[in-house]
Amino acid sequence: MSETPTAQAFTDHSLRLAQIANPQSEIVHFPAHEPLPLDCGAELAPFSIAYQTYGELNAAKSNLVLVCHALTGDQHVANIHPVTGKPGWWDTMVGPGKPIDSNRYFVLCPNVIGGCMGSTGPSSINPATGRSYGLDFPVITVADMVRAQARLLDHLGIPDVLSVLGGSMGGMQVLEWAATYKDRVFSAVPIACAARHSSQNIAFHEVGRQAVMADPDWCQGRYLDEGRSPRKGLAVARMAAHITYMSDDALHNKFGRNLQDRDKVTFGFDADFQVESYLRHQGLSFVDRFDANSYLYITRAMDYFDLAADHGEVLANAFASTKTRFCLVSFTSDWLFPTEESREIVHALNAVAANVSFVELKTDNGHDSFLLHEPELFDTIRGFLAAAAMKRGVAGAEGWLP
Amino acid sequence: MSETPTAQAFTDHSLRLAQIANPQSEIVHFPAHEPLPLDCGAELAPFSIAYQTYGELNAAKSNLVLVCHALTGDQHVANIHPVTGKPGWWDTMVGPGKPIDSNRYFVLCPNVIGGCMGSTGPSSINPATGRSYGLDFPVITVADMVRAQARLLDHLGIPDVLSVLGGSMGGMQVLEWAATYKDRVFSAVPIACAARHSSQNIAFHEVGRQAVMADPDWCQGRYLDEGRSPRKGLAVARMAAHITYMSDDALHNKFGRNLQDRDKVTFGFDADFQVESYLRHQGLSFVDRFDANSYLYITRAMDYFDLAADHGEVLANAFASTKTRFCLVSFTSDWLFPTEESREIVHALNAVAANVSFVELKTDNGHDSFLLHEPELFDTIRGFLAAAAMKRGVAGAEGWLP
Repeated sequence: MSETPTAQAFTDHSLRLAQIANPQSEIVHFPAHEPLPLDCGAELAPFSIAYQTYGELNAAKSNLVLVCHALTGDQHVANIHPVTGKPGWWDTMVGPGKPIDSNRYFVLCPNVIGGCMGSTGPSSINPATGRSYGLDFPVITVADMVRAQARLLDHLGIPDVLSVLGGSMGGMQVLEWAATYKDRVFSAVPIACAARHSSQNIAFHEVGRQAVMADPDWCQGRYLDEGRSPRKGLAVARMAAHITYMSDDALHNKFGRNLQDRDKVTFGFDADFQVESYLRHQGLSFVDRFDANSYLYITRAMDYFDLAADHGEVLANAFASTKTRFCLVSFTSDWLFPTEESREIVHALNAVAANVSFVELKTDNGHDSFLLHEPELFDTIRGFLAAAAMKRGVAGAEGWLP
Repeated sequence: MSETPTAQAFTDHSLRLAQIANPQSEIVHFPAHEPLPLDCGAELAPFSIAYQTYGELNAAKSNLVLVCHALTGDQHVANIHPVTGKPGWWDTMVGPGKPIDSNRYFVLCPNVIGGCMGSTGPSSINPATGRSYGLDFPVITVADMVRAQARLLDHLGIPDVLSVLGGSMGGMQVLEWAATYKDRVFSAVPIACAARHSSQNIAFHEVGRQAVMADPDWCQGRYLDEGRSPRKGLAVARMAAHITYMSDDALHNKFGRNLQDRDKVTFGFDADFQVESYLRHQGLSFVDRFDANSYLYITRAMDYFDLAADHGEVLANAFASTKTRFCLVSFTSDWLFPTEESREIVHALNAVAANVSFVELKTDNGHDSFLLHEPELFDTIRGFLAAAAMKRGVAGAEGWLP
């Protein structure tokens, strides 16, 4: 990793820090007397939820599509990102005429509790001390994130969602929504996820956390107060994680053993191979837009996710008497959340006679497929949403089916 | 990771450092006027090879079995390890009556060049400066390791090997031996390896190297001179690597989501889960026995390994006119060196009409299977060696076949 951050990196850093207190998003501040109860037993108060919307809520309030973001995502789904200056993470999926069509649906994406783009998280100010929370921030869960989102919907006066969608940790939130707020979820699309985080995935997360904590600039979590930043540790964490988001085939096809801007190996520790250069870039660009403590907290929330454990160790219990229409999607080359884990959810849904469809899409793009150009995914989601809208009687939906 | 190394850790550290200059092994010192030419163009001089042996060389010098160790292995195959106090890494495989039977064979295992258990490596004294090499050590390759081993055999007066065996990077050395010293290798057993390091594997190695280099105690590679040690960075590197040595199923079966010495999660960043505790232990115990710069150099040697590239991009050319008898072994759950990569070697050997057998063993134990109790692996190697010995006319071998 570069020893001296570039001017660009410093700029991004200040841009990022500005988003914590004053996000370039709509934001709702819940005052201290309206605390958020957490699974750990503590309460978060006050707390804020930053969110983006696309499209218009219809008169019947029946066209809300809630998008839940993944570990390192945020609310900037389909607008230019205020820190990176790049298109939002699901720009291919959300917008006018796109699969989640903002001409039809009112699309809402909140930043998760624990995040770093305006919703309350470990880099927010702790009212008890006047300084950033750091490790005094309570450990949160996926259920806590979803509970906060329900509070946001209450605040906005929207009783329920036409559909809730998300990939990876977003999919965990979708499952949690469907299990906890059965009457508020007409349809649900969990993509590339699981009902519990596997041993191997916990292991990779633990490596990432240890990489962050090993960085002396982490300062036991107090780096913001110290004016420091555990850039190297967080970059290593991101590099390790990034490998798991791709597939062996994707790496082979994209990079193979190709060399980076050279004809032969240099017999040294520079990035001789393109895959090394690519990973280093992924690590460095990530630390410009993400908070290290948020990374610790959100990975922990995923580790703790175990929907069956929360329902007497029987996953089907989580969905008992559900009326929600489900569409599950997995990807053949996803080794982080393999198809088998989606199939377990389908089995649980079948056991309670839920309305469920399941698509395994063939692709080499690994776990990240849900973020990439996957025409079959686009078609699946466009069609499922249109059918849900028609079934629910959303005004105008009759003409939306292909 | 623990902030304060335990007394035990300090003890191990000094035990380990002692092995660099004065290994508890046989050792051959090649003087400055007998340099080792390296692929990078430099020469290593003087250089030393530390090695262990088991059993006796027969009168015909026809019963040598050369064992090549993997990335973090060493010459202590089947004796108590001088640093850890534990049995050698292939204690189940090598010894009297074991599959590689030291009552039949003269078993030899050298520490690789670049290692840290007595063979010359980055922690050895650089004669030009009187201090440890650090990053002034030349970047070495698998071919350099093998060239040094051939020099050791010359020195010992042993013209050729009955068999050369090894797993992972050991398997790469086996392939290199067979390709480079065709007349000196009667039989060869490459296990769980590949003819070139894949893009994904280079990526994981790069993460490990960046974790080491991100540790300020690495001191740009001069930590020995500074009396420091990049323990945290090397532990993170080991943790990431260790995940790749197992399999999703192995982690699931061994740990699942079991908690470590507690009934419920603690809503914190302690090792709640057994898999976290296990990984932390793997990281910490590794740094007690291994040198960080050796880790950099040896991972680099593996990254550079590409036997086809060294032979006009045609792997079969590497084995043209070979008379060596090959036995390849892969494991179904090995995702670091998947069976397909062994199959590519088999195809290349078939293309030159080599004598080759290939066994894919069904196991959940992942890449590490070659180090574990795998009875089918034991049977395969015992039988193959006995057949090779009989074919070669090793005295007494008639009765060795089961």
